[in-house]
Amino acid sequence: LDSGRLLPVKRSLAALNPAEIADLLAALPWAERKLVWDMVDPADDGEVLLHLPEGVRGNLIRDMDTAELVAAAGELDIDDLADFVEHLPETVAQQVMLALDADDRTRLESVLAFSPDSAGGLMNTDTVTVRPDVSLGVVQRYLRRRGDLPSHTDALFVVDRYGGYLGTLSLDKLLTRPEEHLVAQVMDRSREALPVTMQARDVAQRFHSSDLVSAPVVTPEDGRLVGRITIDDVVDVIRADAQHDWMSMAGLTEQEDLFAPVRPAARRRAVWLGINLVTAFAASFVVGQFEATITQIVALAVLMPVVASMGGIAGSQTLTLMIRGYALNQIGGGNTLWLLRKELLVALMNGLLWAVVVAVIAYLWFDRLSLALVVGLAMLTNQAIAALVGVFVPVTLKKLGIDPALAGSVVLTTFTDVCGFFCLLGLGTLILL
Amino acid sequence: LDSGRLLPVKRSLAALNPAEIADLLAALPWAERKLVWDMVDPADDGEVLLHLPEGVRGNLIRDMDTAELVAAAGELDIDDLADFVEHLPETVAQQVMLALDADDRTRLESVLAFSPDSAGGLMNTDTVTVRPDVSLGVVQRYLRRRGDLPSHTDALFVVDRYGGYLGTLSLDKLLTRPEEHLVAQVMDRSREALPVTMQARDVAQRFHSSDLVSAPVVTPEDGRLVGRITIDDVVDVIRADAQHDWMSMAGLTEQEDLFAPVRPAARRRAVWLGINLVTAFAASFVVGQFEATITQIVALAVLMPVVASMGGIAGSQTLTLMIRGYALNQIGGGNTLWLLRKELLVALMNGLLWAVVVAVIAYLWFDRLSLALVVGLAMLTNQAIAALVGVFVPVTLKKLGIDPALAGSVVLTTFTDVCGFFCLLGLGTLILL
Repeated sequence: LDSGRLLPVKRSLAALNPAEIADLLAALPWAERKLVWDMVDPADDGEVLLHLPEGVRGNLIRDMDTAELVAAAGELDIDDLADFVEHLPETVAQQVMLALDADDRTRLESVLAFSPDSAGGLMNTDTVTVRPDVSLGVVQRYLRRRGDLPSHTDALFVVDRYGGYLGTLSLDKLLTRPEEHLVAQVMDRSREALPVTMQARDVAQRFHSSDLVSAPVVTPEDGRLVGRITIDDVVDVIRADAQHDWMSMAGLTEQEDLFAPVRPAARRRAVWLGINLVTAFAASFVVGQFEATITQIVALAVLMPVVASMGGIAGSQTLTLMIRGYALNQIGGGNTLWLLRKELLVALMNGLLWAVVVAVIAYLWFDRLSLALVVGLAMLTNQAIAALVGVFVPVTLKKLGIDPALAGSVVLTTFTDVCGFFCLLGLGTLILL
Repeated sequence: LDSGRLLPVKRSLAALNPAEIADLLAALPWAERKLVWDMVDPADDGEVLLHLPEGVRGNLIRDMDTAELVAAAGELDIDDLADFVEHLPETVAQQVMLALDADDRTRLESVLAFSPDSAGGLMNTDTVTVRPDVSLGVVQRYLRRRGDLPSHTDALFVVDRYGGYLGTLSLDKLLTRPEEHLVAQVMDRSREALPVTMQARDVAQRFHSSDLVSAPVVTPEDGRLVGRITIDDVVDVIRADAQHDWMSMAGLTEQEDLFAPVRPAARRRAVWLGINLVTAFAASFVVGQFEATITQIVALAVLMPVVASMGGIAGSQTLTLMIRGYALNQIGGGNTLWLLRKELLVALMNGLLWAVVVAVIAYLWFDRLSLALVVGLAMLTNQAIAALVGVFVPVTLKKLGIDPALAGSVVLTTFTDVCGFFCLLGLGTLILL
C-alpha cells in the first residue's frame, strides 16, 4: 500500500468477506483507510460499514454522498438497516427511507421506533411463522414452496390467527418427528418470548442462560409476535458490553478508534485529563498544607509516592472487581456489606505485610525509627481506605445513576492520593516534629 | 437465606435452569454459596459447575467427593465433560474416566488430547454426517429414524467414505430444496472446516467474520471430520477473552472471584502489590536524589503529584488503546510507527494545553514565574514520554512474548513516575537554584 500500487490491493480485497474487510479497515491509519475504502465493491459497502466499530464507521459515513449511502443501505437486512440509519445525519436518513419500497419502509419504521439498546432495536422482522393446527408434512411443503430461510433460522414460530405468539417449532423437531404429527403436538411452549422493551444487556443474559440461537420478540401488551433476535446481534452486544467498562475506566469510549486522526482524538482525551488535573491539584493542595513539615523532614516528600501509589493500586483492584461484578449482575441484594468486610480484611492483611516491608526499608534508608513507624502506619491506613473507597464509590455512583466505570477511577485516585498524603504528612507532623 | 429457612430456597432453585443457578451461586459470598450448592439437584451438578466462572468452580470441586464428581460428569456432553475433567485433580479425573463406557471414554480422550485453547479443545464429537450421493428425501428419512439432533445443529456435514470432510448441508437447504435433489448438488462446498489445532481466539474470529452457528473441525493432515464447534462455546471464549485483558491490567485474573474467601484473595493480590512496591521505590529513589533541592524549594514537592499523575493518566489511555488494539488484531505490519507519531502528537497537543493551565495555577499559587515555567515544561515533557512509553512498552513486551496487559501498567507507571519526578526536580535544580 505504501508503495502506491493499488491494483493488487483491490484484487486481494475481492477475496475477503465484508467482516474481514471491516477488520482490515479498522487496522489502517485513517489516510490509508480512506484509500482502501474507496476500492471496496460498492455492493459490499453496507455490510462492511456495519461490521466496523462505531467510531470508524462514523468517519467514513461523513465522507459518503447520499447516493452512495442509499445504495449501501439497499443491501442490508432490516435490523442492520435500522442500525445503519441511526448513524446517518437526519436529512440523509430520510432520503434513504424514501428510497425503500413501502413494505420495507414500514418494517424499518417499526424497528426504528425502539431504542437501539432494547430487544426492539436488536430484532429483525423476517420471522417465518406457522399455525398450530397443521401437520409437519404441510409445514415442510410450505417451506419448499417458500424457498431459502432467513439466516440463523433454527426454529419457526407458531402463532394464532391474530399473530399472537404460541410457541416455537425447532427445525430439529420438524425434521425428526413423524410428518403426520400436528405442529401443536410437537412445538415447544416453554420457550418464552422476549418483550420488545427488554434491555439489550438482559437479552444477552437470556441468550446465555438459555443457550439460544434465536428468540421470538413480542409486544408486551398483547403478546403479538413482531420479530426475532439472532445470536450474531447478541454477540455484538456482548463484545461492546465487555469493552465498555474497560475503556470507561481509562476515560475512553468503546468506540474510540486507535487509528483516528490526531486532532479529534486529542480533543476527546483533553476532557479526561482536565478532570484528572482537578483531582491532582486536590492532592497537591493537601501537600501544600504541610510545607513547613516537609522543609524540616524532607524524607517525607521522598516517601510520599510510595504511600499514594500503593493505595491507588490496591483501590483500583477492588474497584475493577466491583465494576465487573456489576457487569455480571452479581452485586446487590445485601451482599455489599459482606463485600466491604471482605475487601477491608484483604486490604488489612496485605496492608500489614507491605507496611512492615516499607517501614523496614525506610528505617534502613533514613536510619530513623519514628519515621519508619509513621510511613508504615500511613501505608496501612491508606490501604484500608483504598478498600473502603473501592467498594463504596461504585455502590454510591450506581445509586446516583452515574456509570461507576466512568467516574469510579477518578474518584478513587482522588481519595487514595489525598488520604495517602494526608496520613503520611499528618502523622509526620504529629509524631516527628 | 440469612434467616436460615432453607426450604423456600430449595423450592425456588428447582425453578431455575443450570445457567441461572450458576449465576446465583457466583453472586453469593462463599459460605452461603456452599449452603446453596448442597441444595442443588445432583442431576444438575455437572451443568451448573460448567456455567460457573473458573475460580468459583475450582473451589466447589475441591469440596466434592469422587462419587459426586463421577455422577456430575455423567450428565455432560463430551466437550463439556472434557472441560470439566481438565479441572479435576489427576486421580479423580481417572476415576471419572473409568466410570464412562468405552465409547464415551474414547471420544473423551480424543478431545482431551488437544489444548483447551484450541479448536480441538472446544469441539464436540456429536456430528451428524451424510454422504454426498444420497437424495435429500433419503436424508430426511434417516433423520426421522435417528431422532433428536444434537443441540445447535444448523447443518449436517457431508463426508466421503473415509470420513473426509466434503462440505456442509444446512438444515435450511435440506428443508427448502426439492426432495429428489442429491446432497452433492445442494451442499455448500465453500464453508471451510477449522483445523483441530486452530487457536481458540482465531476460532472466535472466524465465527465472527463468517457469522457461524456451528463449524466442522477436521484433522490438518488428512481433512478427516473429527468434531464440530458450536456458537455457545465460542461465546464463552469471547467473554473470557474480553475480560482477560481488562482484569490483567489491574493485576487480576479473569477467574478472580469477587466473593472468594479472604485469605486466598489476599495472597493472590499480595504479589501484585509487591511488584508495584518495587516500582514505587524506584520513583521514590529519584525524589531522594533531589533532597537538597526540595529543602530549598518546597513548592516542587507540592507540585510533584500533579506532574506524575497527569503522566500516568495520559500514558494509561494510550496503553489501554494499544492493548485493545492487540486484542482486536489491529497492530502490526508497519502501523506501529504511525501510531507512535499519532499518540505523540495527541500528547503534545494536550500536554501543551494542560502545561499552560498548570503553569498559570502554579504562578498564581506560588507567585514565582520561573517555578511556573519549570512545572509547565516538566508537565509537557512527561506527557510526551507517557505517550512514547504507552506505545513502546506493549510493542516491546509483545515482542518478548510477555502479555502486555499484565506487565504493561506496572512498567508504564514506573516510567511516568520516574520521569515526571526527574523532569520536575531536575529542571527545578537547574533553573531555580
